This record gives sequence, structure tokens and C-alpha cells, in this order.
Amino acid sequence: MQTELSSTLGAEHAVFGFTPFPAVAAAISRAGGFGVLGAVRYGAADDLARDLDWMQEHTEGLPYGLDVVMPAKKVEGVTEADIEAMIPEAHRTYVEETLAEHGVPPLPEGEASGWRITGWLEQVARSQLDVAFDYPIKLLANALGSPPPDVVRRAHDHGVLVAALAGSPRHARHHQEAGIDVIVAQGYEAGGHTGEIATMVLTPEVVRAVDPLPVLAAGGIGTGEQVAAGLALGAQGVWLGSVWLTTEEAELHSPLLTRKLLAAGPGDTVRSRALTGKPARQLRTEWTDAWDDPAGPGPLPMPLQGLLVADALTRIQKYETEALLGTPVGQIVGQMNSTRSVQAVFDDLTRGFERAIDRINRIAGR
Amino acid sequence: MQTELSSTLGAEHAVFGFTPFPAVAAAISRAGGFGVLGAVRYGAADDLARDLDWMQEHTEGLPYGLDVVMPAKKVEGVTEADIEAMIPEAHRTYVEETLAEHGVPPLPEGEASGWRITGWLEQVARSQLDVAFDYPIKLLANALGSPPPDVVRRAHDHGVLVAALAGSPRHARHHQEAGIDVIVAQGYEAGGHTGEIATMVLTPEVVRAVDPLPVLAAGGIGTGEQVAAGLALGAQGVWLGSVWLTTEEAELHSPLLTRKLLAAGPGDTVRSRALTGKPARQLRTEWTDAWDDPAGPGPLPMPLQGLLVADALTRIQKYETEALLGTPVGQIVGQMNSTRSVQAVFDDLTRGFERAIDRINRIAGR
Repeated sequence: MQTELSSTLGAEHAVFGFTPFPAVAAAISRAGGFGVLGAVRYGAADDLARDLDWMQEHTEGLPYGLDVVMPAKKVEGVTEADIEAMIPEAHRTYVEETLAEHGVPPLPEGEASGWRITGWLEQVARSQLDVAFDYPIKLLANALGSPPPDVVRRAHDHGVLVAALAGSPRHARHHQEAGIDVIVAQGYEAGGHTGEIATMVLTPEVVRAVDPLPVLAAGGIGTGEQVAAGLALGAQGVWLGSVWLTTEEAELHSPLLTRKLLAAGPGDTVRSRALTGKPARQLRTEWTDAWDDPAGPGPLPMPLQGLLVADALTRIQKYETEALLGTPVGQIVGQMNSTRSVQAVFDDLTRGFERAIDRINRIAGR
Repeated sequence: MQTELSSTLGAEHAVFGFTPFPAVAAAISRAGGFGVLGAVRYGAADDLARDLDWMQEHTEGLPYGLDVVMPAKKVEGVTEADIEAMIPEAHRTYVEETLAEHGVPPLPEGEASGWRITGWLEQVARSQLDVAFDYPIKLLANALGSPPPDVVRRAHDHGVLVAALAGSPRHARHHQEAGIDVIVAQGYEAGGHTGEIATMVLTPEVVRAVDPLPVLAAGGIGTGEQVAAGLALGAQGVWLGSVWLTTEEAELHSPLLTRKLLAAGPGDTVRSRALTGKPARQLRTEWTDAWDDPAGPGPLPMPLQGLLVADALTRIQKYETEALLGTPVGQIVGQMNSTRSVQAVFDDLTRGFERAIDRINRIAGR
């Protein structure tokens, strides 16, 4: 599975794997794909440096990338405490009431939230970049709009390509004008932040909108036949995030969450603002129901919602409260029915891709 | 583009075209596809017979099908008047207020609604079937659940295959148990009634759920690359509805509506209950906004909403009220940017399909 983009980046297959887990990202690159490590969970730059050291040791010189979350707009001198102060008390009460209804205990004294939202803040993302450019990353992806112009320049100075996620052709053209090199067209069915346009329509529309920039198809892709479909739509590669969550290498640290993912069907996700304040697809739970309930206060805008719920999510995960426990994941969760190694996922992807090509050639009479 | 299903039906290409217009359906079959005429707009069986006569004269012996709307559940002895009586007065007032706000005049004295919703009622659908089985239709599709068992038997007795639309794997398995022969997996991005699961995920899930029944991929398909993607996902054909709306043969009878369709982008549709009471994708207009407005009374359940708005939609269309004028259409409306003949659409589809196959073979190193 070779395209111009995968050749440029030095990957054997045009399969890009986004994951918050270094062990998964490294295994994707070793399997011949292009692993992209999500940095949003790293609060301190030191933690990121430690994991990038680990990536260096475990990728055998194969290429990989980093995904940060950096808003294009600069907010000067705003600290996390300033943002915390903007959260209405009624929302804090609603969080506590919802947790109490489900009997979720508080965190032990002195235990901080493990699920850090701080990566959403520009100053944190910038300190991560100061670290990242010391490593031979080949691609810097931004999950939230175009990165600021100086960051794009800095990446290019280091020979690093810049990718950005887009949910509409207009959004994609905006990235192109900002000097972005690779557009990830993220369809409605994708896990995480996503727009209204489905991959089947979004991919070719974005390909045409930003031609000749390379486009990766994201959303609804977890099998070889879906890889073939994404590439048939004109993409130069596919971008997979959800499928890695149930791999052996994933560090979910929650057997219950793994079980919920393995059991979920394609209709068991919801596009909700419960997690970050912007619509993000995730497992539907009584937690997302609480935030989508017209009788509740409703989610706050980004980044307030993320800060509001950070401790709550840590508590739900720590105490494995079944009715509330969720995670960002796409509609392909219905196809994630067994725990496999990253290599086994890759083998299935390449075999399924070959079968799909055989089949479509037969249909075409070739 | 030959599959087992298209061969069985005697069509050159596994491209199924759904349309309410006989001239479009016949042109699809003449172009080598399989035209499926939508019968919902026919109130009287005589009108259907007249148009099926016309189809016979204009399809040159090539195969075609019929699409009816028939609920699986039987409601004995209920007339349209009984259902009309169930509509709350507040909803009727809201319709009139919304029309008055936009200066939509009433219909002239004695002029009935042209946009008949009566096809939704089982007795009407049954009188249509009495006519339909006198013609050599090859496929009977039902847009709303499985048809009743006696209808399936009657179709099979006439050598007619039965197809039904499904929005989830569970829904598809239900059809299989009801003896349906062909499943149309209708993704979120499709025009008309549609569920939450996008085509990229729905198609392979339904293929696996009902194996070995043939599945058609529907939703988000209007170009040859999208046809290739649908077939790569395991479908035995593709089902296209929206793309024909802007063909030369389409009888929209509204130059303004045609202009709106040609100008719309992929984000200009909405999945709304405004039209029938069930979620159906359509152009977003101030009419759909009015029914999605939390301050309004909201849509009634099917079939009440359809009866409630029938005259209003006729008035909006007759007087071409720009802000309110819409139609069911899928997200591919963004790709419908010029008026072409059905044959030209077909030529573009087959050329685009061949290009997509060439491209994907290159990526696969073949």
C-alpha cells in the first residue's frame, strides 16, 4: 500500500495510526505503518521527552509522528486557573450530583487527576513542541484547526511535514492557505472531534478542494475493505485511531472499558459535547446522556467543559463506574470484537485490502 | 460493473437508481443500470398504471423495479380522515404561522395538494401492488421496514425479488428473517429516511450480518470513485437516489429548487423529522429549522407529520418560497453542480469507477 505520501515519509504502507500510547505507536511503525503519538495527555514536557526517548529505542529507525492540540488563536497570559474561574457553580454541582447518583467516590486526598486536559492549552502545546523538535519526528499533526504560522515555519525548518484535521472542504482550504502539508479528512463516523459530513462524501470533496495536497481519509476505517474504500475515494492514505484501543499494546488500564469496547455495536456511540465542549464521538453512556439531557445545564464551550469534567472522568475511570465509563471511539467500535496485537491488526488490514482489490477487479471485469 | 445480483436481474451495471420520475428510471435502465421507480407520489393506482405503461414503452425490454412504502404492521380499517383527526390544532396553527411569516399564499380554491402523502398508507400501497404485478418488474423495494409476509410471498410467486432498506445490522437481520432477498444498507449521509450509522461502517456490517444475502450500498454515492468505494466495502451493487435530481430528465417542476440543489454544499443538508415524522435527510431550510426549533411544537410522529405538512409543502413548491423550499437529498448534493443527462451521469460514473480501480491497483502495486 504505497502512495507518494507514504514514500515521502518512508513508510511501507499508507496506513497512519493515531494513538495516545507509545507502545501502540511504535508497533504501528514497526508493522510498516506510520505511528502518530497523541501528546494531549502529557501535561509536563518531561513526560513527553521520556516517551519520545522510548519511541526512539523501539521504532528501529522507522518513521513516526506526533499529534498535538494547539488552537490557532493565541490567548496571551491566560492560565489554567483563569479558565477554571470561568466555570459556573451550577455546572460543578451538576457534575457532583451526576457522580453521586452513581455512587462514584471522590479521589483519595492528594491524588491529582490523571486525565490531564492541560494539553489543550497553547502554552503546554508549545512546551511540548520545544521537546518534539529535538526528536526525528517526520510529521506534526494538529487535531484542532491550523497551528499558528510560526509553528508551521518551525516544523518546516526542521523538515517536518504538518498535518491538520478537517471536517469540511472549507475547513480544509483554510488549512491549505495556512501552509499545511497534509489534510486529514475526518468524517462524521470518526472517534473524537468530528463534523457532520460522512467519510464517503468528505474524502473526495476535500481531495478536490485542496488538490494537489495529499489527503488522508479518517473515520469509519478499521478493516482492509475500508482501507480500500478510503483509497478509492482519492486519499493518499488512511488515518486510523479507534481500532488500536483494543490491541494488546494499548494501555487503557481498565479491563471494564476494554470489555465495553469489545461488546459495543456500531450504534453505541454518540457525537456529544460532554467531553471537551466541541462535538466528539464517543461511547454513549449515562455520562453523555446526562450532558445531552435537555433538563441538565448542557456542556460548556471548549476549553471550559474539559476542565470541568477532568477530575470526574478520572474518578469514573479509577472506580470503573460501568454506567458512566466511556472513551472517544468511532462507529467502527462494532467491528472491534477481539483483542489482537498491533501486528495482527496490520496483517488483517493488508489481507483484507488485497481481498477487496481482488473482488473489485473481478467486478470491473479485470 | 457486474456482480451476481446485477447478472440475476439482467442489468449491465450493478448501479441501482431510485427516482420518483419515470423518465429518469427508464433512462437509468437504458444506460445499463437498474431503474427503480418510486411509487409513493402516486395516490391513485390508475396513475401508477399509466406511468408503468410508459416505462414498458421506454425501457426497451431492459429490467426495472418499483419502490413502495408499506409498513409491516397492519392497521385495520383506518382511513386518512381518521389519521387527520389525530393532528393537534396547535400544530396546524404553527404550520399556518410559519407559512404566513414567509408570505406563502393559500392554494387557489378547489386545488388539491399535488404532493400526495397517501402512498404511506398501507391500503394505497396494496392497491399499487395490484397494478404493479401486472407489469414485468424485476424488483420490489420497500422503503419502510419489511413488507408484510403475504406481499413477500406474492412477489416471489411472480418471480420478483424483494428489497428493503436498513439503517443498522439488526434491522437488516430482521429483513432477512422476513424473507427479503436484497438489503439496501442506507447510510447516515443518504437522502431521505436514514439512521445514524455512516455508509463506510454500515455496508460491511450489514454484509456480514446477512451473509449470503446481497447488499446494496446506499448513501454518499454519486461519483465513480464512490461506486468503487461502495463495492470495495463488500456490496453487490450501489443504490443512488440524490444524483438524479439534477438530471435533464428529472421533473422537479421548480427551477428555483434545481438552482438550490446545484448551489448547495455537502454541509447544507440536515437529518430532520420535518417531512414525515421520521428522521429524513433533506436540504436545510427555514422550514426544517422551524421544526427543529426547541421553541416550536416539534414534528409529530409518522404518519401524522406527513399529512400535517402535505398542503404546506405544495404551497411552498407552487409559489417557490426560497427560504422554505427544500427536498430530500443526501450529502452528495455538494457534488451535484451541473445539469447532465442520465446517460452523462452514467458515463461519468463508469469512467470515474475505472479511474478509481486504476488508482487503487497502482497503490496495491499491481
